[in-house]
Amino acid sequence: MQINLNETAEFLKEHDNYYILTHQSPDGDTMGSGFALCRVLRNMGKNANVLCSDEFPRKYGFMYEDYEPRKFAPETIAAVDVADAKLLGSKLSQYGDYVDLCIDHHVSNTGYAKKLLVYPDASAACEVLYRVFSEMDVKLDKLAAECLYTGIATDTGCFKYGNTTKLAHTIAAKLMDCGVDIERINRDVFDRKSKARLIAEQHILSEMEYYLDDKCTITIVTLADMEKKGFSSEELEGTAGITVQPEGVQIGVLVKEKEKGKFKVSMRSASEVDVSAICSKFGGGGHVKAAGCTLEGDADNIKLQLLSGIAPFLGIDLWLA
Amino acid sequence: MQINLNETAEFLKEHDNYYILTHQSPDGDTMGSGFALCRVLRNMGKNANVLCSDEFPRKYGFMYEDYEPRKFAPETIAAVDVADAKLLGSKLSQYGDYVDLCIDHHVSNTGYAKKLLVYPDASAACEVLYRVFSEMDVKLDKLAAECLYTGIATDTGCFKYGNTTKLAHTIAAKLMDCGVDIERINRDVFDRKSKARLIAEQHILSEMEYYLDDKCTITIVTLADMEKKGFSSEELEGTAGITVQPEGVQIGVLVKEKEKGKFKVSMRSASEVDVSAICSKFGGGGHVKAAGCTLEGDADNIKLQLLSGIAPFLGIDLWLA
Repeated sequence: MQINLNETAEFLKEHDNYYILTHQSPDGDTMGSGFALCRVLRNMGKNANVLCSDEFPRKYGFMYEDYEPRKFAPETIAAVDVADAKLLGSKLSQYGDYVDLCIDHHVSNTGYAKKLLVYPDASAACEVLYRVFSEMDVKLDKLAAECLYTGIATDTGCFKYGNTTKLAHTIAAKLMDCGVDIERINRDVFDRKSKARLIAEQHILSEMEYYLDDKCTITIVTLADMEKKGFSSEELEGTAGITVQPEGVQIGVLVKEKEKGKFKVSMRSASEVDVSAICSKFGGGGHVKAAGCTLEGDADNIKLQLLSGIAPFLGIDLWLA
Repeated sequence: MQINLNETAEFLKEHDNYYILTHQSPDGDTMGSGFALCRVLRNMGKNANVLCSDEFPRKYGFMYEDYEPRKFAPETIAAVDVADAKLLGSKLSQYGDYVDLCIDHHVSNTGYAKKLLVYPDASAACEVLYRVFSEMDVKLDKLAAECLYTGIATDTGCFKYGNTTKLAHTIAAKLMDCGVDIERINRDVFDRKSKARLIAEQHILSEMEYYLDDKCTITIVTLADMEKKGFSSEELEGTAGITVQPEGVQIGVLVKEKEKGKFKVSMRSASEVDVSAICSKFGGGGHVKAAGCTLEGDADNIKLQLLSGIAPFLGIDLWLA
């Protein structure tokens, strides 16, 4: 059942002993909303813990460095930024059918929770949660404000992407009033990278190849490359955007070998071309600007498959070129 | 003479036939404030042109693609985001002593203009100019709003740096109401790079070396490197931040060979260490987090000079290590 801001505020006040569930492969938004909600509930004298199936990334360490899980019998199950019970992951799947309240911003939310507050136009779950706290007249302390800021900043690429709302900016201004250290947070979240990640980025830049009148780049990373250079496929997560950085490139493709002869394809658009339409021709899918599919073969064969699939979308007849 | 918002608004209304001067090596803020001011003045029925000693970068093309310089005798000389008459560059230096009005945000403004509106706490000249327009009750059209947004976004690293003000966020929200296409602007300004720039970044990542318990990186780019890889020192501008990306690194140094045996050093801090103090030991200077100096010698000798200068600031005794 969908509920509104006021009903969510009332729900939070009336209940106690919360397990707050975050999604697997936790990001800044699910963690930010989880830890902000936990802090606010505890400050109200309630019990609350934050749970996740996976380990929390170190770059968000400030959110949990002073956090201690408490011992209590859970009475209320809440989920934040979790669009589908499947995304709770293996350790939390047991709670999937028993979520009392979900606070989210995904248009794709499956409605698995008994009560659902979802604003599909919000840039982040933290934006929705901020509105709940305003409705409750909560005075945010610095750490809660930093958690909310981080969720909004990470989901919008630091206010860079098209999903950035006016409200995201307005809220950021209000959170700065609570003492958020945006310089430190943004440096840790956006600018700091592991050595292996930097090696992976360097590899992508050095292997990038231009095709189709330089409107398309393809970068193939093989298992042998990763072995030789000393990085894993984990370090390649979130790097597909590099493939559309060159001026004039409309479609960028990052191809990662997952197992011998099996390749995961991540496709990005920096133009009006809908890459989900291209990927669906290969049995994949996704969004207009970011999509993916899986292909089999050797590297050269993969490249040919991709180019023949992409060329018509760029208005290029490959066989006459 | 320093004037306030209201006096600036009155000045702009009372005068006509403006030459609007931007600083040399124009960036998003000087161009954004220049073209926004020009557009607003023209919409008020006045004559105004935007002038610059250097060519405008293509990535800000949307600001000037429909702009046509007019023919008129200049009566009023205004400068935007220009802290010092010297920064007007060779073509505009003739106006240096005759600037009637300067709108700026640099604490270092030399006061060369007859009337000066400067807010040193503002994140950008465009933030100051937005306040002037509000004082004048100007209704901004989409293009003027996009110019102002671009200035604020570029000077704050898209709201990422510590100079981002609450007002920067509040203004961004208001400018979005005027129809600013933040997705397109931010992609062109922040994500799009020339091939040569991407090669330069790849080179920096591949040549970066770790020193002093991995708390310091040094990357040396020689004239021979640039020749071989096909990029120029222009492509290295604004890349020094890469040297402090690795986790744990406190000081990053980018060393560019300017002429045979003469090196320009750019130093960045990602910690409490004040790199301007280090650079001043080498006859240079700058800010706490970003400073520079010039050194002579060969690459190995430069490295030793730098390491012996940096080590004490990291609490490391180089000769015992």
